[in-house]
Amino acid sequence: MSEATAVDGAGLARQLLAGDRRALARSITLVENDDPHGWEIVRQIYPHTGAAAIIGFTGPPGAGKSTLLGELTRLERSAGRSVGVLTVDPTSPFSSGALLGDRIRLSDHFLDQGVFIRSMANRGALGGLSEAALQATLLMDAAGRDLVLLETVGVGQAEVDVINHADSVVLVLTPGSGDSIQALKAGVMEIPDVIVVNKADHPLADSMVRDIRSTLALGPPRDWAIPVLRTIATTGEGVGELLASLTEHRAHIQANGTLTRRRGSHLRAEVLSLVSRRLRRDLETALVREPGFVALLEQVVSRQLDPASAAAAILAEVQPRNEHASSD
Amino acid sequence: MSEATAVDGAGLARQLLAGDRRALARSITLVENDDPHGWEIVRQIYPHTGAAAIIGFTGPPGAGKSTLLGELTRLERSAGRSVGVLTVDPTSPFSSGALLGDRIRLSDHFLDQGVFIRSMANRGALGGLSEAALQATLLMDAAGRDLVLLETVGVGQAEVDVINHADSVVLVLTPGSGDSIQALKAGVMEIPDVIVVNKADHPLADSMVRDIRSTLALGPPRDWAIPVLRTIATTGEGVGELLASLTEHRAHIQANGTLTRRRGSHLRAEVLSLVSRRLRRDLETALVREPGFVALLEQVVSRQLDPASAAAAILAEVQPRNEHASSD
Repeated sequence: MSEATAVDGAGLARQLLAGDRRALARSITLVENDDPHGWEIVRQIYPHTGAAAIIGFTGPPGAGKSTLLGELTRLERSAGRSVGVLTVDPTSPFSSGALLGDRIRLSDHFLDQGVFIRSMANRGALGGLSEAALQATLLMDAAGRDLVLLETVGVGQAEVDVINHADSVVLVLTPGSGDSIQALKAGVMEIPDVIVVNKADHPLADSMVRDIRSTLALGPPRDWAIPVLRTIATTGEGVGELLASLTEHRAHIQANGTLTRRRGSHLRAEVLSLVSRRLRRDLETALVREPGFVALLEQVVSRQLDPASAAAAILAEVQPRNEHASSD
Repeated sequence: MSEATAVDGAGLARQLLAGDRRALARSITLVENDDPHGWEIVRQIYPHTGAAAIIGFTGPPGAGKSTLLGELTRLERSAGRSVGVLTVDPTSPFSSGALLGDRIRLSDHFLDQGVFIRSMANRGALGGLSEAALQATLLMDAAGRDLVLLETVGVGQAEVDVINHADSVVLVLTPGSGDSIQALKAGVMEIPDVIVVNKADHPLADSMVRDIRSTLALGPPRDWAIPVLRTIATTGEGVGELLASLTEHRAHIQANGTLTRRRGSHLRAEVLSLVSRRLRRDLETALVREPGFVALLEQVVSRQLDPASAAAAILAEVQPRNEHASSD
């Protein structure tokens, strides 16, 4: 998938570390396209990462996450901090460098050199998207962004994987987010660090805030009391309070060591995911190509051989080489 | 994890095929506990599976899925058909054979020999839960259940994996399911075969049904027009229509070959998942145990070595043995 034009990876890495926006944009495209030069650039800039604060935003589609990000960006810019925004959208039909669509608040910042905005779309493999998102986050971090805002659209494991790259996680809901509240209550949704009820001018906003607070009160005691904030992203109301909460959360996780632990465990998990995703991809190819495997799968479909026995037969063939080493 | 008492796998398989409920219950416990006898039983009964209709129910917590299942079970029983119900609940704190809690409608059937109810809880590994759910479904099928109702609580990839074992999928929503509607609109939620708006006596039910219908109308044309039905599960209202829709859907997918294709692709996917899950588990163990891997991960955490390079180094060690065979 290497580009037709020659790529000077080392040169791009140098320019990116100097804060060059075009080098940053080009590098993200390379990692998004799975170009070896992209991985090489990440390899070179990696020791220079870790300074940026990574904030993740999750929540149902239509909750107003993008508008909220636009307002937060405005506040951070007026405080002189540089911002990177990465929107990960598994629903977008664009293959890369996806358009931001109706994200009006973000478009206010398109001409600001201190703001770098990028949207990443699904490339078929959901896992691969999370992988590419981490690389893009690292590139923004190395390019000197003080703050990287990670936004995921949608629900499910792909979003959880992306949001795991963040230091702090904000859940954005609106009045009408009944399903998300139920999921929080039932314990099927991971507890975020900050909860925002956006569109807080809605008549049901107050009862929703109360509902969330009582749900949180039923949970186990935590060393961080999760703030439940009201915002109206379209007017900017409450966004200053959200920023203050995020600053406070960062100070908290820095002081008690959570930030270091969280980053360590996420980086370890990322390596595990990279390796197992690659193994799975190789396996998928083999299951289609190898006549022996194809025959086994046909026996499963025709109910002659059960799935677990077929899996065991395939495993015996593909078992990692180092198995003997580890059992010694 | 073999049980202390001796297990006669072949005997249990025979009893199960004869429709014995205790043998069915015992066999499910064995697969849930990852006991080798459980896998052996599935191997023996597998050629006798495929006759049951598997219906999956998904939707946010609190939508009334269990009550709906109870009513459906009642109707099917009065038509003389036997029913298996498998509730997969990743939120339950019970390790196996979880209690059904407040599922009142289901408890009506506890004494009916024609109804077999089982709840499965998370055992830590989400993937493993889907695996165990398929085995349990196969066991119920082989034990002669005409219908197996699969219910998942919650959202995310684990639920998608479970629901993929079903022939027909019902999405259950309620007025207030704003987030699910948004997810449908945004295309981040998979389109089911039948949509039910439960608690249809709620004042917002009608506008919700209209909203769902117009969302579906915007999608691509389908050979199956997805019914959007109103139910009040607590009174049984609309459940007859749901059953009629499911019967119609089954006739449709049988006639056009979708049922065979769907089952084939899900069974193939299940084998792939079984193998890759096992490889990932081995990998997780190796990453904790092998000093070389532990050192690599430490370099990643201390930002000396980037995640992709660490993954490449690990892959070089664990690459499947058959790689040479396939590249020949």
